[in-house]
Amino acid sequence: MIKAGIAGASGYTGGELIRLLHGHPDVELTVLSSRTYSGKSVGEVFSSLRGLDYQFEELAPEEIVAETDVIFVAAPHGVAMGYAPLAKAAGKKMIDLGPDFRFKDISVYEQWYKIPHSCPHLLAEAVYGLPEVHRSAIAKASIIGNPGCYPTSIILALAPLLQAGVLDGSLIIADSKSGVSGAGRKADAGYNFCELTQEVRPYGVLQHRHVPEIEQELSLLAGASVKTLFTPHLVPVIRGIVSTVYARIKPGYSRESLGDLFAQYYRGEPFIRLLGAGSHPGTKAVAGSNYCDISLDFDPTASTAVVATAIDNLGKGAASQAVQCMNIMFGLDEAVGIAGFPLFP
Amino acid sequence: MIKAGIAGASGYTGGELIRLLHGHPDVELTVLSSRTYSGKSVGEVFSSLRGLDYQFEELAPEEIVAETDVIFVAAPHGVAMGYAPLAKAAGKKMIDLGPDFRFKDISVYEQWYKIPHSCPHLLAEAVYGLPEVHRSAIAKASIIGNPGCYPTSIILALAPLLQAGVLDGSLIIADSKSGVSGAGRKADAGYNFCELTQEVRPYGVLQHRHVPEIEQELSLLAGASVKTLFTPHLVPVIRGIVSTVYARIKPGYSRESLGDLFAQYYRGEPFIRLLGAGSHPGTKAVAGSNYCDISLDFDPTASTAVVATAIDNLGKGAASQAVQCMNIMFGLDEAVGIAGFPLFP
Amino acid sequence: MIKAGIAGASGYTGGELIRLLHGHPDVELTVLSSRTYSGKSVGEVFSSLRGLDYQFEELAPEEIVAETDVIFVAAPHGVAMGYAPLAKAAGKKMIDLGPDFRFKDISVYEQWYKIPHSCPHLLAEAVYGLPEVHRSAIAKASIIGNPGCYPTSIILALAPLLQAGVLDGSLIIADSKSGVSGAGRKADAGYNFCELTQEVRPYGVLQHRHVPEIEQELSLLAGASVKTLFTPHLVPVIRGIVSTVYARIKPGYSRESLGDLFAQYYRGEPFIRLLGAGSHPGTKAVAGSNYCDISLDFDPTASTAVVATAIDNLGKGAASQAVQCMNIMFGLDEAVGIAGFPLFP
Amino acid sequence: MIKAGIAGASGYTGGELIRLLHGHPDVELTVLSSRTYSGKSVGEVFSSLRGLDYQFEELAPEEIVAETDVIFVAAPHGVAMGYAPLAKAAGKKMIDLGPDFRFKDISVYEQWYKIPHSCPHLLAEAVYGLPEVHRSAIAKASIIGNPGCYPTSIILALAPLLQAGVLDGSLIIADSKSGVSGAGRKADAGYNFCELTQEVRPYGVLQHRHVPEIEQELSLLAGASVKTLFTPHLVPVIRGIVSTVYARIKPGYSRESLGDLFAQYYRGEPFIRLLGAGSHPGTKAVAGSNYCDISLDFDPTASTAVVATAIDNLGKGAASQAVQCMNIMFGLDEAVGIAGFPLFP
Repeated sequence: MIKAGIAGASGYTGGELIRLLHGHPDVELTVLSSRTYSGKSVGEVFSSLRGLDYQFEELAPEEIVAETDVIFVAAPHGVAMGYAPLAKAAGKKMIDLGPDFRFKDISVYEQWYKIPHSCPHLLAEAVYGLPEVHRSAIAKASIIGNPGCYPTSIILALAPLLQAGVLDGSLIIADSKSGVSGAGRKADAGYNFCELTQEVRPYGVLQHRHVPEIEQELSLLAGASVKTLFTPHLVPVIRGIVSTVYARIKPGYSRESLGDLFAQYYRGEPFIRLLGAGSHPGTKAVAGSNYCDISLDFDPTASTAVVATAIDNLGKGAASQAVQCMNIMFGLDEAVGIAGFPLFP
Repeated sequence: MIKAGIAGASGYTGGELIRLLHGHPDVELTVLSSRTYSGKSVGEVFSSLRGLDYQFEELAPEEIVAETDVIFVAAPHGVAMGYAPLAKAAGKKMIDLGPDFRFKDISVYEQWYKIPHSCPHLLAEAVYGLPEVHRSAIAKASIIGNPGCYPTSIILALAPLLQAGVLDGSLIIADSKSGVSGAGRKADAGYNFCELTQEVRPYGVLQHRHVPEIEQELSLLAGASVKTLFTPHLVPVIRGIVSTVYARIKPGYSRESLGDLFAQYYRGEPFIRLLGAGSHPGTKAVAGSNYCDISLDFDPTASTAVVATAIDNLGKGAASQAVQCMNIMFGLDEAVGIAGFPLFP
Repeated sequence: MIKAGIAGASGYTGGELIRLLHGHPDVELTVLSSRTYSGKSVGEVFSSLRGLDYQFEELAPEEIVAETDVIFVAAPHGVAMGYAPLAKAAGKKMIDLGPDFRFKDISVYEQWYKIPHSCPHLLAEAVYGLPEVHRSAIAKASIIGNPGCYPTSIILALAPLLQAGVLDGSLIIADSKSGVSGAGRKADAGYNFCELTQEVRPYGVLQHRHVPEIEQELSLLAGASVKTLFTPHLVPVIRGIVSTVYARIKPGYSRESLGDLFAQYYRGEPFIRLLGAGSHPGTKAVAGSNYCDISLDFDPTASTAVVATAIDNLGKGAASQAVQCMNIMFGLDEAVGIAGFPLFP
Repeated sequence: MIKAGIAGASGYTGGELIRLLHGHPDVELTVLSSRTYSGKSVGEVFSSLRGLDYQFEELAPEEIVAETDVIFVAAPHGVAMGYAPLAKAAGKKMIDLGPDFRFKDISVYEQWYKIPHSCPHLLAEAVYGLPEVHRSAIAKASIIGNPGCYPTSIILALAPLLQAGVLDGSLIIADSKSGVSGAGRKADAGYNFCELTQEVRPYGVLQHRHVPEIEQELSLLAGASVKTLFTPHLVPVIRGIVSTVYARIKPGYSRESLGDLFAQYYRGEPFIRLLGAGSHPGTKAVAGSNYCDISLDFDPTASTAVVATAIDNLGKGAASQAVQCMNIMFGLDEAVGIAGFPLFP
């Protein structure tokens, strides 16, 4: 059994990790760390998990590392930096669901997150935890920077096109719609039920922190600098992101030939579902799961591909993707513990 | 033109009052008082009201009274007590949307709201602002205790039965379902969109502060003490209360004869809509309006009436009822400014 | 492996059965029967299940029985009657999620469902599939009448009180709030998203078909005739029922002593979660699961208990309860395949 | 008083027209025509309008024309063509909320709507009813093709840029998110509450019927052919469209200089609200109103403007825009009857 611990276990991502790791046949949950809820049972913090025996405690990072084989850090930026050296020294693995270990270029991190990075050497060896792109590196990694939710949905939309070199020019337009859980378990009147029900609205236009992460990974795939215009929108669903991505394609391609690139790139992927022509991805078909559904449309006149993806921002966009990485790191079947299908309706 | 001011104008009820009073042909909005938002324009606080010219300011109660003919107090309990003596002294009118002036028995107020009442003499002359029950007293009043949302929905369900003396025994069961706006514009993670969407749940069972207010008014109507078992539920709608009320009826009545009592009691009422057999009230048909829809069912075996009512908790349950009272107090057509129909769908 | 088939597999309950039985380690899904969708893959009918290999087919009842050890009938009333004699003759088991095998008294069935019952002898031996009440009979049964969703939520609220004989009088008031999925996968403008979003409304007041089923089981538990006033409400959630049940209690009881009755009655039950004082059940904490959460409040003045329960109408109210019955009938661990926790948020 | 009639009055747009025209001080509603609901009262078809005295009737087009000064046709394509010659002959006005009179090029209409156009001469004189672009023509028109909801939101996003000639190239990307009411009052299981709640999904990608209408008007404004990539999405709100529009801009512009173009173009417009930097339009702030909120962002590196607009698809996108046209056609104050502010929350 793999001993797993969660730091920052009382937020939405933490709760999803508890649900998944509790149900994982090869995992024993040994630590649920939370400052706010220390001393409370899991059921007091997550009514859905009433009846489960776990208790939140407040432990020092050293103690958490000592009691676990792998630590999931589901906390704001800056926290995982404190765990990484301890985990490394103890030969343990760490999966950070925040941004501390996602960037190749430390200055990008420091510019966007406004704090210095305390362990650049570990940043250098950390792996961006997107299995469909970096699987073999993940298998050998001890520190994972688990991708952000928006980046996951956008990179998966474009990886086959960028790797095949069919992009015309270097500009991508990504128009994303996210459920509210992406903002976390917030005590903020702006996130009150009454303010967001029946509301659809762009926010953080051209300024979202996920832009540098998206551009880093797209550029790596393209082998050249890729610029992204990114517009996130808040939509009144609890879970789910739909990203609609517009990319100009070099002459000579069709919906079919581009579709072949997707089929090749994602051959054998357990969590990618490519939809047939006329079918489009939606949040409901992926909620609570690790799936990413992808559709492809193509306008030959404008030579532009319209790729739409749907993921659960707390699933493939956070917790279940982290478990997928863990499975790969520990040599398990990649789908174990995260193979469940969404509820319908 | 009646000069109207609002104290506590930045909450949900305050916003609804602004919308209604701005559109009222006989009213000029002269003061919008808010400590938190002083200096902001209305559109910065209520995006729906962008384009309106009002500004929030922080004024002393004396100043507000000086600039208005009628003050609407949309603030937590304890606030209106500070305004009432000033308004009285200045010969102005005050409509309190909180509980300070709803109770006949000061000890009930003090027991439930845990603060002493600072002006018992004004409490004694204040009128409970439910026009369908206390219209003539409202017309003469200078201080109104505007009813709570749940009490409005429950008293209107029972007034015809209690006044006719057909209740068997003294126990009422009232099972109410309320939209989330009833809790106000709260920065509380428990009211986050994600926590309440898809959620239905009882709360405050047998302990809600509206119980004494309900029992006071039902007992007045019955001419005898009436006991109420009240179970409020939170339902995932923004606006609206549906109350389903169960009352044991003396022998000898039928659905038809009870229906006649409703028809008589509410004859000519502009905001009561009695539904035919088989039709039941819902939140959508009243949202944004001052209507109260009422249905009546009767089980002859159990000799029990099931009366269901629907109101908008911010409308007939708060702001538009307050405007209805104002219209009556100033001798205007009772429906002016609040005659709008709900949106559909 | 148990060979399981589903007749009427393309509705909401059918889809939930597919999800659960596909994930059940001791079950092989051998038949998905649907007239409407014959020839379609599962993913074409349930986008959530894209990637699963099953196909809908239209088979004669005889063929379905031949290919299965247990048949789940998720079809309108009248259908399961056609399967029961075939299953019986072939020594197979049948679990009907409709009403055909829920009634002890055939005339009650025929009065409420307006069709003659074609196999009264099988009705007589069928067992009402509520494990917490009829577990040992279920273990020996070959035909199960799986309980309705409302009855499940109401019977579980009252079983401890009725069995202990503490009810004063014979009248129960049950006020239930149900998610829209209870109405099925309907092409009816009245169930359009726009008509039900933001809507809360009673319906079928005093006339719902679940009343005779509720009264049958409550009366059995009480050992005497129990009368129920039942008011169902539609609330804008997808899944979930909250039932708030009011029962007059004989003198001499308290919240604590009544609570002890619940603790005793439900001791060791894997899917009943009794909530502590001040905590109340909600739809989100049970959605997608087989749990029933129960709270108890007591008003000593009115000597009335207020019991609130929450279930998922498609889970404990239909599909997962049917799987729970199957587990019992086949001697498996009762929780296998249905032990998952709800998503949160 | 203007005598107004509605043909196809029982759908969502029809209901909104009834609400608005009933409240319009210069209008008398003389005909509500509906085949399906002939003989029913308004309150039976729209529970929100209970208490209103109108009756649906089934009248021949000639009769409707005879009883009205202006006919609103809120019916599927093909219907208004039958009314136009009658209205013209009788000297009456007609406002079609469908597509029959929106196109300059009859072949475009016939290609997209698959029926022949029966009165091309009237098509030629009809005016596209977008007041902010065609006000003076509307004032003189007798036949109005009221714009589609998506086109309204997209044309208003671009008119200032196109008219000023700052577009670089001829490609527009328009990513729109629409509430479900845009699909009408449908009995279709795919529009069931359970299927669309918690769902976000693109549909009709690159194939929507509003594309030719959008391109016609954008090209007119630009004085050159403009190509639009249009991706509509369904989002789980009842009312509202947010369109996020991406347009490449010629060198030399900034957020400020582009903002000035908007300020000039929309100077004095009663229903356009231009938002300040950092503020973005949402569905709630416009629901139930005739407002169009507009934000502007600019990425200088990509020289691309991101313009976001929000309208109510049944308001500015249909019914209240039609009333705005009527006001202009009859020489009334343009805002009369449609000046109401949205509910909040």
